[in-house]
Amino acid sequence: MAKANAVYAQSGGVTSVINGSAYGVIKAAQKSDLIENIYGGLYGINGVLEENLVDISQEDPADIERLPFTPSGAFGSCRKKLPSLEKNRADFERIIEVFKAHDVRYFFYNGGNDSMDTAHKISQLSHDMGYEVTCIGVPKTVDNDLPVTDNCPGFGSVAKYNAVSIQEASFDVASMHHDSTKVFVTETMGRHAGWIAASAALAARTENDGPHIILLPEIAFKEAEFLAEVERIRSKIGYCVVAVSEGLQNPDGKFVADAGTVDMFGHTQLGGAGDFIANLVKNKLGIKVHNALPDYFQRSGRHIASRTDVEQAIAVGKEAVRLAAEGLNGEMVTIVRDSDSPYSWSVGHTDIANIANKEKVLPPEYIREDGFHVTDAFRQYCLPLIEGELWPEYSNGIPLYTQLKRNLVPKKLG
Amino acid sequence: MAKANAVYAQSGGVTSVINGSAYGVIKAAQKSDLIENIYGGLYGINGVLEENLVDISQEDPADIERLPFTPSGAFGSCRKKLPSLEKNRADFERIIEVFKAHDVRYFFYNGGNDSMDTAHKISQLSHDMGYEVTCIGVPKTVDNDLPVTDNCPGFGSVAKYNAVSIQEASFDVASMHHDSTKVFVTETMGRHAGWIAASAALAARTENDGPHIILLPEIAFKEAEFLAEVERIRSKIGYCVVAVSEGLQNPDGKFVADAGTVDMFGHTQLGGAGDFIANLVKNKLGIKVHNALPDYFQRSGRHIASRTDVEQAIAVGKEAVRLAAEGLNGEMVTIVRDSDSPYSWSVGHTDIANIANKEKVLPPEYIREDGFHVTDAFRQYCLPLIEGELWPEYSNGIPLYTQLKRNLVPKKLG
Repeated sequence: MAKANAVYAQSGGVTSVINGSAYGVIKAAQKSDLIENIYGGLYGINGVLEENLVDISQEDPADIERLPFTPSGAFGSCRKKLPSLEKNRADFERIIEVFKAHDVRYFFYNGGNDSMDTAHKISQLSHDMGYEVTCIGVPKTVDNDLPVTDNCPGFGSVAKYNAVSIQEASFDVASMHHDSTKVFVTETMGRHAGWIAASAALAARTENDGPHIILLPEIAFKEAEFLAEVERIRSKIGYCVVAVSEGLQNPDGKFVADAGTVDMFGHTQLGGAGDFIANLVKNKLGIKVHNALPDYFQRSGRHIASRTDVEQAIAVGKEAVRLAAEGLNGEMVTIVRDSDSPYSWSVGHTDIANIANKEKVLPPEYIREDGFHVTDAFRQYCLPLIEGELWPEYSNGIPLYTQLKRNLVPKKLG
Repeated sequence: MAKANAVYAQSGGVTSVINGSAYGVIKAAQKSDLIENIYGGLYGINGVLEENLVDISQEDPADIERLPFTPSGAFGSCRKKLPSLEKNRADFERIIEVFKAHDVRYFFYNGGNDSMDTAHKISQLSHDMGYEVTCIGVPKTVDNDLPVTDNCPGFGSVAKYNAVSIQEASFDVASMHHDSTKVFVTETMGRHAGWIAASAALAARTENDGPHIILLPEIAFKEAEFLAEVERIRSKIGYCVVAVSEGLQNPDGKFVADAGTVDMFGHTQLGGAGDFIANLVKNKLGIKVHNALPDYFQRSGRHIASRTDVEQAIAVGKEAVRLAAEGLNGEMVTIVRDSDSPYSWSVGHTDIANIANKEKVLPPEYIREDGFHVTDAFRQYCLPLIEGELWPEYSNGIPLYTQLKRNLVPKKLG
């Protein structure tokens, strides 16, 4: 079989370790007998549509080696979700046309649910159009909400970031509560699934350690019960640490964050679930509250990434190339948990159609009966995913992250 | 001279390295010929007023060795500022009474401006009352706003936290801006002085790296100029990263954070300078904005502390005991910069009266002429303070921080 070219692209919200998957794909592609050149899509699928393909062979090999130590998307990512084939055949045909022009027969798409949907459609259409492109999905999402796979690269590191940060903030409030802050609130990512909020539980070593309350999107928010729980914990240990998911909802199914805050000019204000909870505690209980919103810091905090997560990110990238070489198409790489204790894992794969546009929320057995915390079963699931550290190199006091040159392959189309 | 006891106490907002100073004081006190027992004040000066003195000799030596690796105040801190002697003589007399009852002749107070004021007054009154207590101040503040000393322990680590986090978030926005977030805003601590906001500048390795705009409390906020600067940067590189001090003020001298946001019930809302700036960009420029509020995460982020900062924190603790042994009283330990490049430093000291209730703001030579960034002179000042790492030990995926037993010395008074 003659060699052909491959495109790797990144999609959706970036993570601390998505570049680890880029590294895995690139290194495996460079060794593969089937792949001539590996190109990077500049800003995800946009790079294909716009014929902006990064010539990875022009990068300094030292920069490639630093990819697993660099957060965010080194090739740029995108939020573009392509509509259905029926509604948007032109975009898909353009993708195939660009692939054809550059002799691209392999497409590795690194993303979450939406991206798997895109990869699935490209795989189908390329077959229909008689220009076969092998599409393999590489999983990535901090939200950990993909089905089939035991966990998703990106999640372990955001979980570790939150566990470490909340442990530190809990120590802070424990120091200050005698005559100052009594309640600390932090908002985690995870709009529809509570995996990240739940992972905050790993900050605690003992029953009395924060976080004392975890507010999950899976459990409708009940104000009175929540305030009573805050007071119960305060009367026991003097202070209370709360982790709240950005996706927390009222019993009517509306996000608590959409509570309708306006400024003095009547403009609707940004302000999330963390602000809402902090304001509630301040106004209803009349005590001093601090709140944090780590936002992008949590999903790009490579300096505190999980070694397990980095290793899995690299492995799923390498496996994607191996699956393509084996002749598979329309599959996504998965992570399989072979054993809980000691934790061991391997890579597997599943039909992309099993993943596309599906979401895995926190199952009931991971949520404490009263809805305000997690169970030991969740802790057992999550702990191995945050284990281990893999520090980046430092210079001038900050991590030495890679910025690729991203020189483009000459365009062949208009 | 007969041996006597000593009290060490922590005051004000805690830091990543204040326990390093505790370690320095404890280790030096345990070796001192003048000090019999070293006690910890539980929750700062409250511990003296309430006769809650921690018996440090009962702590596990391994826990003491872990103090420099543990953020926050291991003995608890306080926000208590004692009013003047004239208005509040009873409290000061109570302090002397407790010291007398426990044969305490040395008091090491670890804090910022207010705490130095307290230490100064205790030193004065103890002399007047004929029960001489040697009071030595140990500097601590993330705000870096104490005069005389070149810098304050705690600042280097909050600066490193912000530099690292903002570098990571800048990489994130750089990945996403093609079809998603264009502006990222983060709010730093520092209500009256811009040192922490300025330190965000160390996130950048090149001119195009974030943060692109730094909004300092020393420079009155001008909305039109700010929005124009955001647009100038966006048109140049496609996105813009903004670090804003919580203390940013309008030209009328009011905090921008006090912009009068209310919820649907008319309650005033928490919401800081970061929210204000993010909303402004969203409403005036109509582009996608994300904002972060690291809050306590920044000042207790020991996992990313500066080695220079930890070493200085320990050194000022040790030096406090040495000064007391030399017979000095009413002095605060300082850090002296002996050389910029290569950076070298030593410890010095100054009369506490030179410190108490005084604030050092960012000098004009550290602020870029247009007010939206810092100068190279500031970078040269700040860089050595964030240099080096000193990782804590990890277990179960998170740092192994110390929680002291804090057994109290039996009370002798009511």
